[in-house]
Amino acid sequence: MRLRDISEGELLARLFPLYAGARPALRAPLLVGPGDDAAVVGAPGGSVVATTDSMVRGLDWRDEWSSAHDVGVKVAAQNLADIAAMGALPTALLVSLAADPDLEVAWAVELARGVASVAEQAGAPVVGGDLSSAPLGVVVVSVTALGDLGGLAPVLRSGARVGDVVAVCGSLGLSGGGLVLYGRGEADPDAARRGAQADAHLVEPLDDRSVAVRALMRHHRAPAVPWGCGPVAAAAGAHALVDVSDGLVTDLGRVAAASGVSVDLHGSVLRDRYAAGPLTLALGPDEALHQVLAGGEEHSLVGAFDDAAALPAGDEPWRVIGRVVAQGAEGPSVTVDGLVPDARGWDHFAR
Amino acid sequence: MRLRDISEGELLARLFPLYAGARPALRAPLLVGPGDDAAVVGAPGGSVVATTDSMVRGLDWRDEWSSAHDVGVKVAAQNLADIAAMGALPTALLVSLAADPDLEVAWAVELARGVASVAEQAGAPVVGGDLSSAPLGVVVVSVTALGDLGGLAPVLRSGARVGDVVAVCGSLGLSGGGLVLYGRGEADPDAARRGAQADAHLVEPLDDRSVAVRALMRHHRAPAVPWGCGPVAAAAGAHALVDVSDGLVTDLGRVAAASGVSVDLHGSVLRDRYAAGPLTLALGPDEALHQVLAGGEEHSLVGAFDDAAALPAGDEPWRVIGRVVAQGAEGPSVTVDGLVPDARGWDHFAR
Repeated sequence: MRLRDISEGELLARLFPLYAGARPALRAPLLVGPGDDAAVVGAPGGSVVATTDSMVRGLDWRDEWSSAHDVGVKVAAQNLADIAAMGALPTALLVSLAADPDLEVAWAVELARGVASVAEQAGAPVVGGDLSSAPLGVVVVSVTALGDLGGLAPVLRSGARVGDVVAVCGSLGLSGGGLVLYGRGEADPDAARRGAQADAHLVEPLDDRSVAVRALMRHHRAPAVPWGCGPVAAAAGAHALVDVSDGLVTDLGRVAAASGVSVDLHGSVLRDRYAAGPLTLALGPDEALHQVLAGGEEHSLVGAFDDAAALPAGDEPWRVIGRVVAQGAEGPSVTVDGLVPDARGWDHFAR
Repeated sequence: MRLRDISEGELLARLFPLYAGARPALRAPLLVGPGDDAAVVGAPGGSVVATTDSMVRGLDWRDEWSSAHDVGVKVAAQNLADIAAMGALPTALLVSLAADPDLEVAWAVELARGVASVAEQAGAPVVGGDLSSAPLGVVVVSVTALGDLGGLAPVLRSGARVGDVVAVCGSLGLSGGGLVLYGRGEADPDAARRGAQADAHLVEPLDDRSVAVRALMRHHRAPAVPWGCGPVAAAAGAHALVDVSDGLVTDLGRVAAASGVSVDLHGSVLRDRYAAGPLTLALGPDEALHQVLAGGEEHSLVGAFDDAAALPAGDEPWRVIGRVVAQGAEGPSVTVDGLVPDARGWDHFAR
């Protein structure tokens, strides 16, 4: 069944129940949900944090690699990462779908399930959205995320100070590594296993490298974002926060520029803690380190803190990966052990 | 110059200054603007109203009819109408553009100018957005609008009560009428005059019908939305509010269904006050009345109030067009002088 085969109302009747599972955070109650002209969400801190991010079929994902559920997880997660990177707790999502009317209804439903799974984990219900038809083959998913600072000041990119430690919460390089593997035509262990499910006896245990490959490809398709790290970092007094969307060096470069400082990263930590393990197993040590430095769409959080003792503890630990230093004569920079790495960022139109 | 010819940073450097003119409402200060991971907007009422709406090239507008500026005005205005229809004052906009990298930079700049012109009038600055590349020929513009209720309760669709008067703020049928004219291949007086500007002596005064045609076509391309009516209606104690996006009868049908009532419209008022004038001049009286009842994308506000004495005064007056009555055995309905009109609504995928 295609979108053109049912009315907008019938489609909404399939989507709304999927979104009903997410319970809003107690501190930001959902006052008016979907179905009226607009939603009303609690903003007890007296302000609202807002961000928006879109994904386009064929450009931000490929149907050969990503399921609709993956796309839903990713577009929701990358928005929540931006909320977390202000130090805010996510409170609500709005989801727009512009799609070729020939799109399968099942695809739209799975997309909603993916968004809903993240919404439930994050306590940020889907409160509104929009459906539009689009030209042949086109699918564009746009999400807006709202968040609440709980009365704290937002943690900006501009607050890093010389002497701060730079720390990360979450993984580095997995998504970029996954993209490299897809680009090389490497088989997706998840897809292979799904295909084999009908013949259960064909599902063999994965070897170590396949486990690593699967972790990278999964993070690229549907990243696990540590959005809980953001509010915790704000409460711990983080001076600056950013999420890794265009690459560690590129995004830290934005912090450096906004703060008028430079950042020097500890090569040994990046190598031993982040490039080692699945990334090196899947890609070898050189490509692994390159992805740690330059891989985009990871959506982990990076921040600047007074010192290592100021790092928040918790299930998702913050680890020191570098230090804020004074900028040189040539302005703000990001270096690794004092050297400028080869880690070019990402630009949407200049591919 | 095309989008592919400049970097994302260079494009943003052209767009940000266009958005700098909008001053946020005093009661909802802009705490963090574009450029960080997310924006932070004041929400002094302790809640935030949020809505989102997209426009797709070739489906929601045609380049032959609408300039990029028109598209910017329309996508911003239709979002602000949803904010107003909750009784809220708009506080901020987020704008996403997914576009073929072959799109002219000048088009993206004019789109931003259109959005900015509405943002300035409404006091709702553009605080964030997203740029994505899209397949050949595709342009999708998505806007999210935020609003503040100023401590009042939101005005829902479900609050209409038997005995209420039904009133409208703004025009009816102009946008639908404009669409009919475009569909008939009628020449756009604005386009003709723009073309003649090089030969100033060719610009003759428009005759009455051409003035009417221009008003309809303009409202279709770039509606003037009376968003100030929303907060004023809320303050005056409106029981229900909705904006006319899919047609007066369809949208009032949603109010009727949500409130468990029926609505009876005054045919004489719709004919004499709304169908008469430019609509009848351009389209004749029958099509004019049909557009008043069924024309979409008008984005005027319709509400239910205690009685005519409760209607807010002001520059944009509210006028009684009907009455809330008890629903019949067949459930909620919208009638004109007791009869069910032929006024089918709009459905995105079932064209």
